[in-house]
Amino acid sequence: MTVKKSGGLADVVAGQTSISTVGKAGMGLTYRGYSIEDLAANAVFEETAYLLNYGKLPTLPELQAYKIKLRKLRKLPAGLLHILEQLPAAAHPMDVLRTGVSALGTFEPESSATDHHAVTDRLLACSASMLLYWHHYHSQGIRVDTESDCDSIAEHFLQLLHGHSPSKLHEKALDVSLTLYAEHEFNASTFAARVTASTLSDAYSSVTTGIGTLRGNLHGGANEAAMALIEAFPNPAKAEAAVRHMLQEKKLIMGFGHRVYAVRDPRSDIIKRWSKKLSDDAQDWVLYDVSERIEQIMRKEKQLFPNLDFYSASAYRLLGIPTSLFTPIFVISRISGWMAHLVEQRSHNRLIRPNADYIGPETASWLPIDHRS
Amino acid sequence: MTVKKSGGLADVVAGQTSISTVGKAGMGLTYRGYSIEDLAANAVFEETAYLLNYGKLPTLPELQAYKIKLRKLRKLPAGLLHILEQLPAAAHPMDVLRTGVSALGTFEPESSATDHHAVTDRLLACSASMLLYWHHYHSQGIRVDTESDCDSIAEHFLQLLHGHSPSKLHEKALDVSLTLYAEHEFNASTFAARVTASTLSDAYSSVTTGIGTLRGNLHGGANEAAMALIEAFPNPAKAEAAVRHMLQEKKLIMGFGHRVYAVRDPRSDIIKRWSKKLSDDAQDWVLYDVSERIEQIMRKEKQLFPNLDFYSASAYRLLGIPTSLFTPIFVISRISGWMAHLVEQRSHNRLIRPNADYIGPETASWLPIDHRS
Repeated sequence: MTVKKSGGLADVVAGQTSISTVGKAGMGLTYRGYSIEDLAANAVFEETAYLLNYGKLPTLPELQAYKIKLRKLRKLPAGLLHILEQLPAAAHPMDVLRTGVSALGTFEPESSATDHHAVTDRLLACSASMLLYWHHYHSQGIRVDTESDCDSIAEHFLQLLHGHSPSKLHEKALDVSLTLYAEHEFNASTFAARVTASTLSDAYSSVTTGIGTLRGNLHGGANEAAMALIEAFPNPAKAEAAVRHMLQEKKLIMGFGHRVYAVRDPRSDIIKRWSKKLSDDAQDWVLYDVSERIEQIMRKEKQLFPNLDFYSASAYRLLGIPTSLFTPIFVISRISGWMAHLVEQRSHNRLIRPNADYIGPETASWLPIDHRS
Repeated sequence: MTVKKSGGLADVVAGQTSISTVGKAGMGLTYRGYSIEDLAANAVFEETAYLLNYGKLPTLPELQAYKIKLRKLRKLPAGLLHILEQLPAAAHPMDVLRTGVSALGTFEPESSATDHHAVTDRLLACSASMLLYWHHYHSQGIRVDTESDCDSIAEHFLQLLHGHSPSKLHEKALDVSLTLYAEHEFNASTFAARVTASTLSDAYSSVTTGIGTLRGNLHGGANEAAMALIEAFPNPAKAEAAVRHMLQEKKLIMGFGHRVYAVRDPRSDIIKRWSKKLSDDAQDWVLYDVSERIEQIMRKEKQLFPNLDFYSASAYRLLGIPTSLFTPIFVISRISGWMAHLVEQRSHNRLIRPNADYIGPETASWLPIDHRS
C-alpha cells in the first residue's frame, strides 16, 4: 500500500507498541498504562525502568533486588577505561557515550544466549560511569572509581559528578527527571533503534543508534540549546526583549512545541515544579524567572507550550550539572525505553524497510569518461 | 493521515530520493539514473562514489584528483590506533568498525563549517585502514602501516589484507563488488541513517547507525550466513541433499529473495559472473558449483532468486577474504550511499518521527508498592 507523502512519517503508523502512549486522547503520557503524573510522584527511576522492561511494577523485594543488581554493575572493563582516556577532552559527551557503548559491545557482546535484560541492566548501571570517568579524567586528570554504594542511579550520578553525596532534594529531582525522560513511544531515537533491531542486529548497535539519533538539536540536543538561551539573560525583562526580537527575526526558540502533543507536554508541568523547588532551595530564582517569562511570551506570541526540555535546563543547572552533560543524562534514562522497544521489536520482528518516491533523473545512457563535462 | 498497519513499513513511502531506484519497473537498479549494469561494466568504485555524492559522473581530471585526495586520507590518528588495539581480538569486526567510526567522530568532529564531503571522503578512505589495522594487530601482533600508494580502495584493501599487491583480476573483482554494494535506496541501514540525520545529528552518528543496522542477519550479515552454508559442502550433490533437507525442515536459506525486487536482483547476475571468473582463474570451481546447485534448487523449490549476497560469498572467499570481513566490506562501500542520503536528508530536512498503534494496557490506577504481587 502506497501512502501520501506526508514527510518525516508524520501521522504515519509505523507499528504497534504496548509500552507507552503519547498524546493519546484521554491518556496523555502513560508507561505500561500508568500515568506519568503517578510515576513521577510515586515511583523511583529504577521502578520505572523495571516497569518498562519487565512489563509490571516491581514488588518491594523485586525492587530491592533490582537496585542491588544495578549497583554491582557500575565498574567498567579496564580496556574501556583506556579507550575513554584516549577520547579527546574537547569531544562532545554524546560522542563519548556513543563510542563507549559501542566499545562495551566488543568487550561484553550480546550472544543469542544472553538474556536481553543483562544488556539493559549493564547499560543502565554503567553509562553514568563511562560519562563521568571520561569527564573527570579530562577535566581534572583524575581516574575516578566508578563503583559506589549509592542506592540509586540518580545518587550515583550526582556523587560521581560532584565528589560528594547529593542532598535528598537534589537526588529526588534528578530521579524524577530520569523517569520523565525514560520513554516516549516512536520518537526518532527509539524508532531508529527499532530499525536497527529489525535487522536482527545486537542490542549495543540499537543503543548506539539511539544515542547518535538523540544527539541532534531537533531531539535530545534541545535541552542544551534551551539552557544556552535561558542563561544568556540576567533577568526576565532582558529575556523578554531579546526573545521578542528573536521572534521578529523568525529565529527558532528551542524547548517549545512537540510533534505529537497538541496542547501541552504533561512532563513539562512536573519538571517545572521541580525547577521551582530547586530554585527555592538555592534561594536563586533567576533562571526560573527568566524561563517563566520566556514561557509566557511563547504562549502569547506563538501559542506554543514548553516541552520537557525547557524547564529541565534550569533544573539541571541548579543541580550543578554542566550543560554538555544534559543530553547524556537523557541517554542514561532513555536506555530503559530503547531496550524495552528492542525487546518488543524482536518479539514480533519484521524488517523495517520502507520505500522511497523517486524524483531523480530518468534512465541515462552511459557516458564514457572522455565525453563528460 | 493514519495508514493501514502493514508491518515493517513495507510498501510505505517514507520520503523522496533522487539518488537511486530499486526495482522500479523498467529501471531496475540505477544510481543517479545510470544502470547498475553500466556502472559495474564501466565505472571504478571511486567514480561511483563520486557520482552518488556529487550527483554527476566525474571527468578524467576530476576522477584523478578525487583518487589522489582519498589516497592521502588513509592514515589514522594515533588515538584511534590505541583504541583499535584495546578492542578484543574476538570482537565482531562490524563492532570494531562501528566503534572506530564513532571514535573518529571525537577526533575529527563534523562542525557546521565542515564540508559534508570531507567526512564522506575521510570515511571512504580510512575505513579499510581501521578494519585491517585492528585485524592484523590481533591476528598477528603487527602494527601495519595503513598508508599506501595504491591507486584504488579495492587495491588498498587487498594489499593491506594480504601484505602484497593483488592481481588486476582480484582488484577489479573487489572494485565491482564495491560498486554493487554502494547504494540501495531506503534499505534498513540507509533509512536508519536518515532517521539519525533527521534530528540534525552529525555525520559520524549517521554512519555509526548505518553500521549497527547493516550488521544484522536480515541485512548485511546475510553474506556471512550464505558463506557458512556454501562452504559446508564438498560438492554439489551433498549441497543439494542438505538444502532439500533444510527446506523440508522449513529452515531459512540466506542470500535469496528481496523485500523490493520481485523477479530478480540485477546485482546477482553481475557478481555471479565475477565469481565464475575468479573460479576459472583459481582453477577451483567447488564453491561456484555448490552455489549454482543451491541456486537451482531454490529457484525450483521456492521460486526464489539469489540476491547480491549469495554469489558475493564465493567471490570474496576466492579473493582470500575471511568471512568475518565480508559485512565490513559492505560498510566500506555503503558509506558512499549513506552519506549521499545524509546530504539529501539535510537538504530538505523534516524530523522522521512516526506514530505507533497502541495495543497495551488501558490506563491503570497507581498501585502502592506494598499492594503489588
